[in-house]
This record gives sequence, structure tokens and C-alpha cells, in this order.
Amino acid sequence: MSILLKHVLLNGKQCDIAIRQNRISEIGSGIHGDFETVINGSGKAAFPPFYNMHCHAAMTLLRGIADDMELFDWLNNHIWPAEGRLTPEDIYWGTRLACLEMIKSGTAYFNDMYFHPHETVRAVQDSGIRAAIGMIYLDASPQADLFKRHNSELWEKRNELGDRIRLTYAPHAIYTVEEKTLEQIAELSAEQNVQVHIHLAETAREYADCMDKHNRSPVAYLDSLGLLSKRLLAAHSVHLTDDDVELIREREVHTVFMPCSNYKLSSGKFRFNKLSQSGCHVTFGTDGCASNNNLSMFDEMKFGALAAKLEYGGPTACSSAEIFYAATQAGAEAAGFDAGIIQTGKLADIMLIDLDSPMMVADHNLISNLVYAADSSCVSSLICNGKILMHNRIVEGEKEILEQARKCARHLLGK
Amino acid sequence: MSILLKHVLLNGKQCDIAIRQNRISEIGSGIHGDFETVINGSGKAAFPPFYNMHCHAAMTLLRGIADDMELFDWLNNHIWPAEGRLTPEDIYWGTRLACLEMIKSGTAYFNDMYFHPHETVRAVQDSGIRAAIGMIYLDASPQADLFKRHNSELWEKRNELGDRIRLTYAPHAIYTVEEKTLEQIAELSAEQNVQVHIHLAETAREYADCMDKHNRSPVAYLDSLGLLSKRLLAAHSVHLTDDDVELIREREVHTVFMPCSNYKLSSGKFRFNKLSQSGCHVTFGTDGCASNNNLSMFDEMKFGALAAKLEYGGPTACSSAEIFYAATQAGAEAAGFDAGIIQTGKLADIMLIDLDSPMMVADHNLISNLVYAADSSCVSSLICNGKILMHNRIVEGEKEILEQARKCARHLLGK
Repeated sequence: MSILLKHVLLNGKQCDIAIRQNRISEIGSGIHGDFETVINGSGKAAFPPFYNMHCHAAMTLLRGIADDMELFDWLNNHIWPAEGRLTPEDIYWGTRLACLEMIKSGTAYFNDMYFHPHETVRAVQDSGIRAAIGMIYLDASPQADLFKRHNSELWEKRNELGDRIRLTYAPHAIYTVEEKTLEQIAELSAEQNVQVHIHLAETAREYADCMDKHNRSPVAYLDSLGLLSKRLLAAHSVHLTDDDVELIREREVHTVFMPCSNYKLSSGKFRFNKLSQSGCHVTFGTDGCASNNNLSMFDEMKFGALAAKLEYGGPTACSSAEIFYAATQAGAEAAGFDAGIIQTGKLADIMLIDLDSPMMVADHNLISNLVYAADSSCVSSLICNGKILMHNRIVEGEKEILEQARKCARHLLGK
Repeated sequence: MSILLKHVLLNGKQCDIAIRQNRISEIGSGIHGDFETVINGSGKAAFPPFYNMHCHAAMTLLRGIADDMELFDWLNNHIWPAEGRLTPEDIYWGTRLACLEMIKSGTAYFNDMYFHPHETVRAVQDSGIRAAIGMIYLDASPQADLFKRHNSELWEKRNELGDRIRLTYAPHAIYTVEEKTLEQIAELSAEQNVQVHIHLAETAREYADCMDKHNRSPVAYLDSLGLLSKRLLAAHSVHLTDDDVELIREREVHTVFMPCSNYKLSSGKFRFNKLSQSGCHVTFGTDGCASNNNLSMFDEMKFGALAAKLEYGGPTACSSAEIFYAATQAGAEAAGFDAGIIQTGKLADIMLIDLDSPMMVADHNLISNLVYAADSSCVSSLICNGKILMHNRIVEGEKEILEQARKCARHLLGK
């Protein structure tokens, strides 16, 4: 596989980008040679694509099924009953739909936590993007043993997943997973150098309950179990003390900011500038489609920046460059892929932005435009791991994915 | 002009929509007859388009010119110097670009306040959408007399503007327009039945200064001058006491919620549910592109709903139906156009949504999808006043608008 992108705008200059196998082999002007595919990139700008650091991909099937409700009503009477009807087939098509939406909005990777992870793997293999698939631990669930069996089966196949897919240990949260299990995961993660993906300090109740039970904050509790490390992907991280922030910085934990979900569920306010200024790793995620309700990293960047400004720091609280970095390069680093920046030798993950989108004009500052003005309509092409997944907004197999996903969504209503 | 939309989804049912002249002439199944244009609407859903109730359209040329700064630095050192270089030609192409972006994101009307309003009129006439054009009053400006001359010239031509364009009196704000001028505008507005468009209670400083100077809140001050009425379009309305809310309700003022601008400039928090539950008129606007930085009503709806939830009311604070109503029908009512709902006899303003956009699947609740999931990529066609302005995302003259706007944007940098 080889691709030549001609006359594309990169960091303010027009150039050519050559891709061989799955890496960027050359960047320069007037590149010639033998390439299987040559793309005219005039009027397009190349940027690293987004890394969605927390997702429940197949929840696309639950998009709009229930909104504007109290958490307890929403979970008990709508989300959990519908999730109880999810079949492996649903997970496959729901995840395909999620991958389609992510490709169309410039996302090349997602960090997932959901049921039937083998089906998520299959959907990611077929869609062409990158993902970390969580081996879910949910001791509080009657299906906990089934989940553990799925995890073992997945772990057995870990060497057959291909180079786009990683596995993570995915304990759901401190209030649904037993202390003993968390300690085991901490040990396994360290021995095997496998990442851990958890919902952490998402709600005020989680914080209060943890203080009651353990006399420690959720962050300090995880640290006491040996889970706080650079292998930890801590989704939400909304209810943090200053001491928690310091622990997160020291242990090099990757936090995941999800403003849309946090606001929609009224979970709380992520302290973007406190974390960022303290030198913590901050990335962005979308959460699942029941609490957002899309997978657009454009929404997360814009709302994240705006929330950071009004809530804590005023208009200078964060810059568009910082926000774009968190949504791209910081994510790639957290995910452990040698990507996130367009440079010779790096993995060939590239998003092409259509400079003829009205939202990209005027072009005084393209990064500002991407963060504050653009939406998915501005993404014209997506290349992941050296393969073209979307060109001129067309994705292969799109129609079938939509039809199958609609069919799956219907039976979730129990009709 | 006559159009037949076949097999389009409307309120959950497939039907045909017939348009003759500028009105919806029939809605039913199997409509036949002589139509100049027949559109196959299979896989599309019809909704009323958005009404953008506060805008400075030509500021598209300043998109991204300066962000992430304190208000004073931002205005004095970046926005005002660039605005000082704006020519009538710039206003024309900047507004054409704004109209293009609005058409592409499903907006059929905007309520504008900016310089060289005759050029805004010309751009709106050429673009095909609806607008209210503000006759700006800015006593604090050295150019105040020039603005008044422009206003008089525009007023003379008020009967030649066509049926898509209205004029409003647009005093900039209580701190830039003298009391005497505001009183005159109140009288003229009542005599001539012309709307008044003003920035009101946008910042804490405006509120504090008004209390110091007039011993009243900005809202109470405007009421004392006779300006609070159903003819008033009050942009921002962020700093309100409970008494202000009661006055706004009694006087039937139309408030304009602009969450993106309010958050980006850290102006303050609009009390959506207090206003809404009190029975006040709430609409949405985008503000100009320097403080947002786009004209997408999708962003306003989503961020507005999310902000309303976290800030004041929790997850049940507002419903997607309420939010969509505010962005469409409430806007049309505030603007005084007989539109905002798709019904026989109403003005033919229709947005077609592509149900094959991944963000519109699953389709459990299309209004929820529009508010929480969709972006401009989901809008496939826009009809305004019985004319097709966009079909399959193509707008006539697009390329020229982008080229001319880019050219205009360059000289604003003073290069």
C-alpha cells in the first residue's frame, strides 16, 4: 500500500506527503515515484486525526432512546433494560455505526468499554480504525462471570488482533468492582504492561461514598491499590481535590475530559486549567451516545474550551492550540500509538480538512477554526494506518451499516 | 415557482409537501399536478429551519483573528482595529459568506447588527435567505453621524427591500447609546411598529455600571425609557434579577440565548429554565464569528441545553423539544414571519435532514438527534420563501463567495 498526497497544506506550507505501508515515508515538495494511489490535496489541509479516549461505541443504537431524565430513572427504566436486550450482532453493527460516525468526523482511534468485546474487535477490524478494547470487570453485575469468560477468550487471542487493536483491563468503576479484583488488575497491568481503563471520580456521589467507605478520595483509593500509573486511562476525573491533581501528575495518569457527557448528565465540572497547568496529561473523549449524543470530537473540543473558560479561568483559560493538542497528539501518546503528529517515520494517520468549507473561512488561524468553528462537514478524507477510510466524505459499505444498525436499534425498544 | 417534495418524512409520517409561490400549498400523500421542480425526499425528514436571532454576519471575515484573550485586549488590539479597515465591499462578501454558512447549517433567517447595513441588505437579497437588518446607533463612536446617515438612507428605501428583509432599530447597548437616543427609538418603534434590537445585560460590568448610574438594572432602565415591549429583541440577557425576569415576561420581550458566545467571552450564564418556566420568550442566536466562532445553530442548541442542565436545573432542566422550539418556531414568531412550522398556508421555509447521516441513526427520537447529535453535515437541502437555496449540500455561487471572502479577509490584517 502506498499513497501520495499532492499539494496539501501542512503547518502553513503546501507540500506533498508520501505514505508507504502504514507509515509516513517522506514529506517535501515535488515528490515523485511509484504510488498505488495519488490524491490531489489542493484546497485541503492535513492534520493529525482525533483520538477518542473514552467510548462505549455500540451505544449508538441507544442514541436518543431516553434524554433529559434523572440519572437513576434514565439508567433503571431505559438504558439498562435496553442494554439487557443487546445481542452480539447488535454490538457488531452498533460499533460499525460508531466507527462510521467517527471516520466521518475525523477520529482514527477510540478507547472502548462495553459488552461482547469480541464483537467490538470484529467491527474495528472491519472498519479500519484503531481501538483499545476493554476487558470489562463488573463484579456488581449478575453477568460478571460471563464477562470474565469473554475476557479470557479475548486475552487468548491477543496476538491475532492485528496492529490496530490493543486490549485494556476495564474495571467499570470503584463502586461496581471489588477491591480484590482491582488489586489483581493492578498486578496484571504492571506484569503484562497492559493499560487500565476506568470511570473515575465521575459523580459527587462516587466521591462521597468513597470517602465514607475508604476515608479517601476515589483517586487516593485507586493509588492505595497500586492502580495509579502512566498505564491508567481515567475517564471523567471530574471530582478532584488539589491533592488528587498532584497524585495524577506524579503518577503520570492520563485523564479524559468529556464535557458533553458531564454537562448532559450534570455530573460536574472538569478542572481543565488546573490539571493542564499542573502538568497533568489531559485528553478528550466522547463517552457513549446515550449521554452525549454523538461521537464528534469537534463538539468536545469546542464545548471543553468554552466550559474551561467560563467555569474557571475566563477567556484566557485555554488556547485553541492546547485544546487541539489534547484531542489529537496527547490522545495518541496516551493510547501508545506512534502517531498524533504528521512527521516522516510516524504512523500514517491523517485527516484532510476541506478549506472550502465556509466554517474554515477566513483562514487567519486554522487551529482556531478547527476548535471553535468546524464540524464534521469540514473533514473530507481520513487515512488510518496507511489506508484511506474516507475520501471526499464517502466511506465504503456505509449504506449497509446504516440499514443493519437501524434494524438492530428497533429490537432494543422491545417491540 | 412551484416545488413538490415527494415521500418526505414529516412528524413521523411519510408524505408529500407542495409549495406554490412562497407558501406551503398542500401536505398529503400522492400529491400530483404541475410543478416546476419535483424532489425525491425519500430518506429525508422535513423540519422548520433555524432562526438566528442575533448576529453580526460580516464578522465571518474576522473568524479566528484573535481568540483566548481578555475582552479589553481582544477588542482594543484586535477586533476594533480590524473593523476599522472594513470596507463596504468587505461587508458584502463577509455577509455572503455568513449566509452561505447559515444555509449550509439549516438557518433561514438572521437578525443582524453591523456597519454598512445597505451592503448587508444587498448580500441578503443575493443569497435568498431572510434577515432583519439593524439601523445601528452607537453614540459613543466617532462615526455615529455616519451611521445615522446610513440609517436614514436605508429607511428611505424600506419599501424596496423585498419581502424577505425587515429593518430594525439597533441601538448597540445602554452604555454606548445616550438616554435621549434610546427614548427617541422607543417612540419611533411604537409609532412605526418597528422592532428594536439591542445587546442587553451581557456582562457583569454593564449591570454594575447601570446600577451605579441609574440605580436600576439594565432591564429596569430600558423599561423606564419605554423600550421593553414585544417589539424588543434582547440579545444575551445574561445578568437578570428575578424582578428583571418578571418584567421581561410581562412586557413580552424576546430574549436571545447565545451560549457559545457567553461561554467563550466568559460573560455569564443565561438562566434558561428560569426564563422558560416563567413563561418568557426564549430564542437562540449565534453572535458574530469573532466570539463563537461559527454560525451553527446546532452548536447553540446542544451547548445551550447542556449548559442549562449543569448550571441550574440538572439533567431534566430542559427537553430537546423545548430547545428545538426555541431555535425554530419561537425565532420565527419573534422575527414576525409567518413561518417556523411546516403547515399548509405557512411560508415555505423547510430544512431537509439526511436520515442516512450516521448522527441521525438510531432514529428513536429525531428531535433529540437534531439537538444533541446532529451537525451541519446532516442538512441536505434548504428551502426559504419557496426557493431552493441548497440541494444535496450544493449552493449556487459557493466558490466565488469563498474566494472573494478570503480576499477581503486578508486586507483586514493590514497586510
